[in-house]
Amino acid sequence: MDTTELAKRIAEGERRALARGITLVESTRADQRVQARDVLAALPKDRQALRIGLSGTPGVGKSTFIEAFGMMLVGLGLRVAVLAVDPSSARSGGSILGDKTRMDRLSREARAFIRPSPSQTHLGGVARRTREAVALCEGAGFDVVLIETVGVGQSETVVAQMSDLFILLLAPAGGDELQGVKRGIMEMADMILVNKADGDLKPAATRTCADYAGALRLLRKRPQDPQSYPKAVMVSALHENGIRAAWDDMQDLVTWRQDQGFFTASRAAQARYWFEQDVRAALLAQLDHPEAQALMAELGAAVVENALDPAVAAARMLEHLNG
Amino acid sequence: MDTTELAKRIAEGERRALARGITLVESTRADQRVQARDVLAALPKDRQALRIGLSGTPGVGKSTFIEAFGMMLVGLGLRVAVLAVDPSSARSGGSILGDKTRMDRLSREARAFIRPSPSQTHLGGVARRTREAVALCEGAGFDVVLIETVGVGQSETVVAQMSDLFILLLAPAGGDELQGVKRGIMEMADMILVNKADGDLKPAATRTCADYAGALRLLRKRPQDPQSYPKAVMVSALHENGIRAAWDDMQDLVTWRQDQGFFTASRAAQARYWFEQDVRAALLAQLDHPEAQALMAELGAAVVENALDPAVAAARMLEHLNG
Repeated sequence: MDTTELAKRIAEGERRALARGITLVESTRADQRVQARDVLAALPKDRQALRIGLSGTPGVGKSTFIEAFGMMLVGLGLRVAVLAVDPSSARSGGSILGDKTRMDRLSREARAFIRPSPSQTHLGGVARRTREAVALCEGAGFDVVLIETVGVGQSETVVAQMSDLFILLLAPAGGDELQGVKRGIMEMADMILVNKADGDLKPAATRTCADYAGALRLLRKRPQDPQSYPKAVMVSALHENGIRAAWDDMQDLVTWRQDQGFFTASRAAQARYWFEQDVRAALLAQLDHPEAQALMAELGAAVVENALDPAVAAARMLEHLNG
Repeated sequence: MDTTELAKRIAEGERRALARGITLVESTRADQRVQARDVLAALPKDRQALRIGLSGTPGVGKSTFIEAFGMMLVGLGLRVAVLAVDPSSARSGGSILGDKTRMDRLSREARAFIRPSPSQTHLGGVARRTREAVALCEGAGFDVVLIETVGVGQSETVVAQMSDLFILLLAPAGGDELQGVKRGIMEMADMILVNKADGDLKPAATRTCADYAGALRLLRKRPQDPQSYPKAVMVSALHENGIRAAWDDMQDLVTWRQDQGFFTASRAAQARYWFEQDVRAALLAQLDHPEAQALMAELGAAVVENALDPAVAAARMLEHLNG
């Protein structure tokens, strides 16, 4: 199938075509990179999904939340795609099944699409591939794209850079102290959802939610936030409580930002950011070609033997690349 | 004067030629960058200075130490160059004089050369220029090159990457606690010198030195350290006490590393590191050309308007750069 045909089928909502498109953007093969770009270029440009970044450490009930949230969206007649950014794991085929098993109901929905994290461990590469997968899902006509991350290291920042909304999912804390959530992550969050507000954990969830609401009030006010945002609310993914209310809050926030122009401005800034990142990455990728690597090794050896100054060797390398 | 002549005069130890060479490596003008590389390429390759990185925050007596240390080296018949890496400051002409005034005696020595920090604030650029200035000083036949940094942010790491020895200069601490020296900087240090071990501060210096000696013993043993290194010792730059003993310690350490092969291995690894950094920087510098910037702006605008996917726009940018 050529790339025009593949793009057409993706745009028509064919799931297998979308899966194949994502496999293309995840590829590191040069010819498949070219095909991936051709597919991206051929997608309809007038479609826009709401991109929701979701961060939560293992144990907060992320899969249960995504299942409940996704089923609620599907119930509203919306199409939802779930993508994962997890640079820390090299997930096996087994846990890909695991993902779908944990989101048992959602994975069987015709209006839902779940794609587990690619198994690369390099965050930069994962970021680009995920951003392009988001673009494919938008082109495929999804209404909501959920981008989940386990919240280690820099992955929240990366996900926030490709999201319209960034949501932090937390579990009730044991004591009266805030969990070890870094200030930087708090500052990125548009909403904090305290999950497991059910059964024995309800009192702890109430306390944790109040703590975070207080902490959010202490943060510097951002221009893109209306009154009462960022906010902390309670949900129970297990009992499907508060899920719809959280969605209503998200929509209120998005509507306000659209009206104020922040939504479009943020998208524009993100697109520019990824463009510049892609250019830099592509420039540096020239060093990966076998011929370039051979010359790098040769010049590097001369540098190591002190026969060439590093700056002189670097200039020769550039002459080769631009020759 | 052509670059061959300039390199010849630098190699002959002509101070004005060295100063002119450093001005060339500090230049951002493309033609002067080419000249700088020609000078570096034409320098004798069989000369080697001992490169000593020296980090110390303002107030620890760094200038007084450098003066005392430099005068001691000059007294031993050695030639010493002092270079500064200070990305945080945009030093004025006034404080360049200030540098020389604070190192009053050393600056008047024929066997000493003092070059203040270039006024660029971009650490990457400062790093490359300083490394090339070190290479010029080596080519000029200096026996010791001191590379000083004020110790903010990443500058210690940069200086350590171009030094044979990395020395941390500290002042006596007020209490019985370790000063706020980051573990990462401790782990880079080959020696810690506690300055101001004189007069009223002597007891505090003794205590501080013992604290750091204890802290250094708790660090993971590095293969490139012989028994009893890294070590913490006391000096008084003001009274010129302990300066010669510190130099003897440094020489013992260097001799051991030379015998064990670590000295050459470290130089080789550093040269390779700077070569690779230079190649990356040069690749990215292609984006600074006016024509490239114009196309970046044009493609960036299309990306922002959602007319082009970032990946597609990046591919077009690369086509232009490699066309």
